[in-house]
Amino acid sequence: MTKTKYVSESLTTMTEMIFPNDTNTLGNLMGGNLMRMMDVVGAICAQKHSNRIVVTASVDNVSFKESIPLGSVVTLQAKVTRAFSSSMEVVIDVWAENIPAQERVSTNKAFFTFVAVDQSGRPIDVPISLTETDDEKALYEGALRRRQLRLVLAGRMKPSEATELKTFLNGGE
Amino acid sequence: MTKTKYVSESLTTMTEMIFPNDTNTLGNLMGGNLMRMMDVVGAICAQKHSNRIVVTASVDNVSFKESIPLGSVVTLQAKVTRAFSSSMEVVIDVWAENIPAQERVSTNKAFFTFVAVDQSGRPIDVPISLTETDDEKALYEGALRRRQLRLVLAGRMKPSEATELKTFLNGGE
Amino acid sequence: MTKTKYVSESLTTMTEMIFPNDTNTLGNLMGGNLMRMMDVVGAICAQKHSNRIVVTASVDNVSFKESIPLGSVVTLQAKVTRAFSSSMEVVIDVWAENIPAQERVSTNKAFFTFVAVDQSGRPIDVPISLTETDDEKALYEGALRRRQLRLVLAGRMKPSEATELKTFLNGGE
Amino acid sequence: MTKTKYVSESLTTMTEMIFPNDTNTLGNLMGGNLMRMMDVVGAICAQKHSNRIVVTASVDNVSFKESIPLGSVVTLQAKVTRAFSSSMEVVIDVWAENIPAQERVSTNKAFFTFVAVDQSGRPIDVPISLTETDDEKALYEGALRRRQLRLVLAGRMKPSEATELKTFLNGGE
Amino acid sequence: MTKTKYVSESLTTMTEMIFPNDTNTLGNLMGGNLMRMMDVVGAICAQKHSNRIVVTASVDNVSFKESIPLGSVVTLQAKVTRAFSSSMEVVIDVWAENIPAQERVSTNKAFFTFVAVDQSGRPIDVPISLTETDDEKALYEGALRRRQLRLVLAGRMKPSEATELKTFLNGGE
Amino acid sequence: MTKTKYVSESLTTMTEMIFPNDTNTLGNLMGGNLMRMMDVVGAICAQKHSNRIVVTASVDNVSFKESIPLGSVVTLQAKVTRAFSSSMEVVIDVWAENIPAQERVSTNKAFFTFVAVDQSGRPIDVPISLTETDDEKALYEGALRRRQLRLVLAGRMKPSEATELKTFLNGGE
Repeated sequence: MTKTKYVSESLTTMTEMIFPNDTNTLGNLMGGNLMRMMDVVGAICAQKHSNRIVVTASVDNVSFKESIPLGSVVTLQAKVTRAFSSSMEVVIDVWAENIPAQERVSTNKAFFTFVAVDQSGRPIDVPISLTETDDEKALYEGALRRRQLRLVLAGRMKPSEATELKTFLNGGE
Repeated sequence: MTKTKYVSESLTTMTEMIFPNDTNTLGNLMGGNLMRMMDVVGAICAQKHSNRIVVTASVDNVSFKESIPLGSVVTLQAKVTRAFSSSMEVVIDVWAENIPAQERVSTNKAFFTFVAVDQSGRPIDVPISLTETDDEKALYEGALRRRQLRLVLAGRMKPSEATELKTFLNGGE
Repeated sequence: MTKTKYVSESLTTMTEMIFPNDTNTLGNLMGGNLMRMMDVVGAICAQKHSNRIVVTASVDNVSFKESIPLGSVVTLQAKVTRAFSSSMEVVIDVWAENIPAQERVSTNKAFFTFVAVDQSGRPIDVPISLTETDDEKALYEGALRRRQLRLVLAGRMKPSEATELKTFLNGGE
Repeated sequence: MTKTKYVSESLTTMTEMIFPNDTNTLGNLMGGNLMRMMDVVGAICAQKHSNRIVVTASVDNVSFKESIPLGSVVTLQAKVTRAFSSSMEVVIDVWAENIPAQERVSTNKAFFTFVAVDQSGRPIDVPISLTETDDEKALYEGALRRRQLRLVLAGRMKPSEATELKTFLNGGE
Repeated sequence: MTKTKYVSESLTTMTEMIFPNDTNTLGNLMGGNLMRMMDVVGAICAQKHSNRIVVTASVDNVSFKESIPLGSVVTLQAKVTRAFSSSMEVVIDVWAENIPAQERVSTNKAFFTFVAVDQSGRPIDVPISLTETDDEKALYEGALRRRQLRLVLAGRMKPSEATELKTFLNGGE
Repeated sequence: MTKTKYVSESLTTMTEMIFPNDTNTLGNLMGGNLMRMMDVVGAICAQKHSNRIVVTASVDNVSFKESIPLGSVVTLQAKVTRAFSSSMEVVIDVWAENIPAQERVSTNKAFFTFVAVDQSGRPIDVPISLTETDDEKALYEGALRRRQLRLVLAGRMKPSEATELKTFLNGGE
C-alpha cells in the first residue's frame, strides 16, 4: 500500500440539482438533505485517499447561512485535510448557483471524519497525507485542534488535555 | 401567541425502519441518512414549540459510534432545550434496535438549532422555554455554552467573549 | 420466549412530514402513501410484540375522510389488539397536524394483521396479548368479529359460521 | 360530459419491477408498497372513467397470500365496477411473475373507492357505468353489498339498514 | 427452451403518473426520468421474450418532442422487434395523457437493445422472433439497418460494411 | 447577454455512488438510471453555457459496454460541443471506479441535445461556442454530422440532404 498521498489526489467534485422532494415548505433545500449529499461526497473522497471502504465517524458543527431554492445547482468539493492512523478528516465546501440569474454563493464549509475499515468493519491504517499549498497546510494545522474539540465533545478527552484547542480559545492563534 | 411553553410540549418521537437504499457497502445505515432523519424530527419539534415554519440554522458535532444494520428500527426523540429569541436548540437522542434479537443501543445524541420564520423567511420570536425536570434544567444550562461554541466556530463571536465555553474548557464545570 | 405480553409494550409512534413527492395533483397526501406508512409502523409494532420478523397478512377496510396537505405532520400510533397463534391484529390511529395553524385532526383508524415468521418465512407462534385498559379490552373483544369478517371476505370461512359478525350486524352489539 | 361509459373503457394496466428498496428483511415486497402501487393504478383508472381529478375515499379489505420476491414483475389491472354519483368502486387484480422461472401467480384482488372532485376538491358527478360481460355484471351486482359493508364499518350506516349485506351473510347469495 | 416466439407474446404495457420529483424547473417530466421508465418496461419485455435475466446493451437516438406536465399519465408499450442470437431489439412507444382535459399525444418512439445473460452475466441465446402483422414485419425489416447504425456508431463496424444503412441513406428505401 | 462562450466554461463534473435501488437483479447499475444521471449533468452543463432554463431535446445512441456494480463510484463529465441557435449538443463521458480495488474504466460516451427556453418554454438563442483544444475542435466538427443523423432519424431531414453524414458513411472521413 502507498504510505503517503497528496491531499490533492482525493479532491472530489459533486454537482447536484435540487428537486422538489429535497425542499421544505418554503421551497428551499432542507438542511438534512444537504448533509446527506455532504456525507456521500466526503465518503468518496476518503475512499480515494485510503483505497478502502470507509464509514462516517463524525460531523463537526455545520451552519446553514443561505437558503438554497428549488432548481438551484449545488456543487460540493471534498478534500482530505489530514489523516490520523485509520481516520481521515475531510473538508467539504459547498456552493449554490442560480445559473440563469448568474448568482453563485458559498453556502457551507464542513468537516467530516471517516474511518477506513476492512470487510469485517475493523479500522485499518491509511496513508499519511501530504500538503502542497498554503491553504492545505493551514487546514492540516487546524485539524489537530478540531480533533481535540471532537474528542472533548464526545467525552473521550478531558478539556484540560486539549492543549491546541485551549490555546486557540485563549486567543493564542 | 403563547409567551412561554414547557419543553415537554415539543417532545417528538419518530420511528423508522432501515431499508436497503439507506445503507452503505457494508449494509449499515449511512451517517448522512441518519442526519436527514434527525433534521426532519428536529424540525417538527421546533415547529411544535414555535407554531411556525422553521429552517435549520446549524448542527453541532455529531459522532457515529455504532453501526446500524439493514432491517434495524431507529427511534429518534427530539425536545427543545432552550429558546433564544427566534432560534431554538433541539436535542435529538437516537436508539437503534434489532428487535428479533432484543438488542437496543443508544447510538447518537445531537444538538440542532432551528430558526422560526414567517412566510417570507424572516426570523420571528418564539416562546420562552420552561423546564421542569433536572435533565431539562441541565440541558437548558448547557445551551449557552454550546451556543457560544457555535458562534465561535462560525466566526461570529471572538473566543475571548465565549465566557461560558472557556469556563467549561478550563475545568470550571 | 415470553409467553404473554401487555399490549402497551408494543405501542409504536411514528411522526412523518409530508413532502412534495407524497402528494397528488391537488397537493394532498395520496392514500397509497399513507397506507405505506401504516404498514411500516404496524410491522414495527408487531415485531415488538413477537420479537420476530413479521409479514403483512391483511389490511382491513381503510377510509380516507380528511385531506392531508403538503407540509402537514402526520403522527401514526400502532398497538397490538390481539394475538391469534402466529398472527397479530394491530390497530393504527393516524392524526394530521398543520402545526403553524394549530390544527390537528384524527384522519384514520385502521386494522392491519401481521404474521410472525422464522428466517425461512414459516409462521411461528407469538405471545398471548394481555389487556389493561377498557379501551384495550374493547379492541380485544372486537378482534374476533373483525377476524371473522376477514376470513369471510377472503373466502376462507362460510358466512354462516361467522357467529360474532352476524350478531353484530343483526344489532346484537 | 358523457353521461354513460362502458367499464371496459377505464381498464388500466400497470407493470412494475420489484427493486431493493421495495422489500422487507426477507427480500420480499412489503405490503404497504403494493398498496401504494394499487392506489396509483386505481386512481388512473378512476380518472379515465370520470375525466376528473380523483381522490382515494377508501380501500376494502386486502389480503396478502403470496410473497413477491425482489426482481419479480408485478402486473396490476384496474377497472371501474360501478359508479355511485361522485364515487367509483375500482377492482384491482394483481399478478406476480418470476419470468425466468416462467412462474406467474395471482396475488391479490382489492376494491378501492375514488371520488371525482373539481379543482377546489368538491365532489362532482361521474358517468353511469355500463357493463358488457358476465364478469362485469357480477362485479356490478356485488358493488352494492360492498358499499353497505364500507358504510357500516365507517359508522355511516346502521347494520340493520345494510339489507344486501345481511342477505349475503345469511347465505342468501 | 422454446426456439421461436411471436413478438406479440412480449408485449408489455406500463402506466405511470408523473409525480413532483420527476419534473424539472418548468414542472415537466425530465427526459432522463422518461428514459429510466423506458429502460424498465423494455427490460421486462425482453425478459418475457427470453425468459432470462437481461441487461441493457444500448439505446438508439431518442427525441423529446412534447413536454409532459406534472400530473400527466404516461403509457409505455414495449415489444420485441427482432432477436439476434443473444440480443433483442425492443421498440417502446410512449403516450402522455392529460385525462381530465381528454388530451392524449404520442410523445416518443425509441429502440432499446437488451442482451439475455445467465447468472454469471454471460450472454445466452434467445428464441427467434416471429412476426404476424405488417407493422411487426416492417419493424423486423428495419432492425438490421438500425443494428448496423448502432455498430458503426459504437466503432464496431466499418461504414463501408453497413450495406443496409447505406442503401437507406442513399434513398434506396 | 454574452454572445460567445468557450466550451471549457460549461465543463460540469458529477460524482455519484451506486446505491442498492439503482441496481438490477445482478446487482449492477441499470442503464436507465445511468441515463437519468447523464440527463441531469448534461442539463446543468447546458444551463452553464446558456444561463437559461433548458429542456432535453434528444439523446443520441448510447451503448452500455461495462457493468457497474453496487458500491461503485461513477464520475460524469459534461461539456458543450457546439451550439446551434437555441440548441446545444453536450458530450457526456462516464467512468466507473471500484476505488478499493483501484480499478477505473471508461464506460460510456454519449451526446445529448438541450434547448434553451424562456419561462413560457419558448426556444431562445444561446451564445456561439468557441473551441480551444484539438479535442474540442474535433467534437465541434463532428457535431454537424451527428445533427444530420438526428434529423434524419427524427424524419425531419431527407437522407439525401444529410451531406456530412453521407460523406462519413461513404468513408470520406
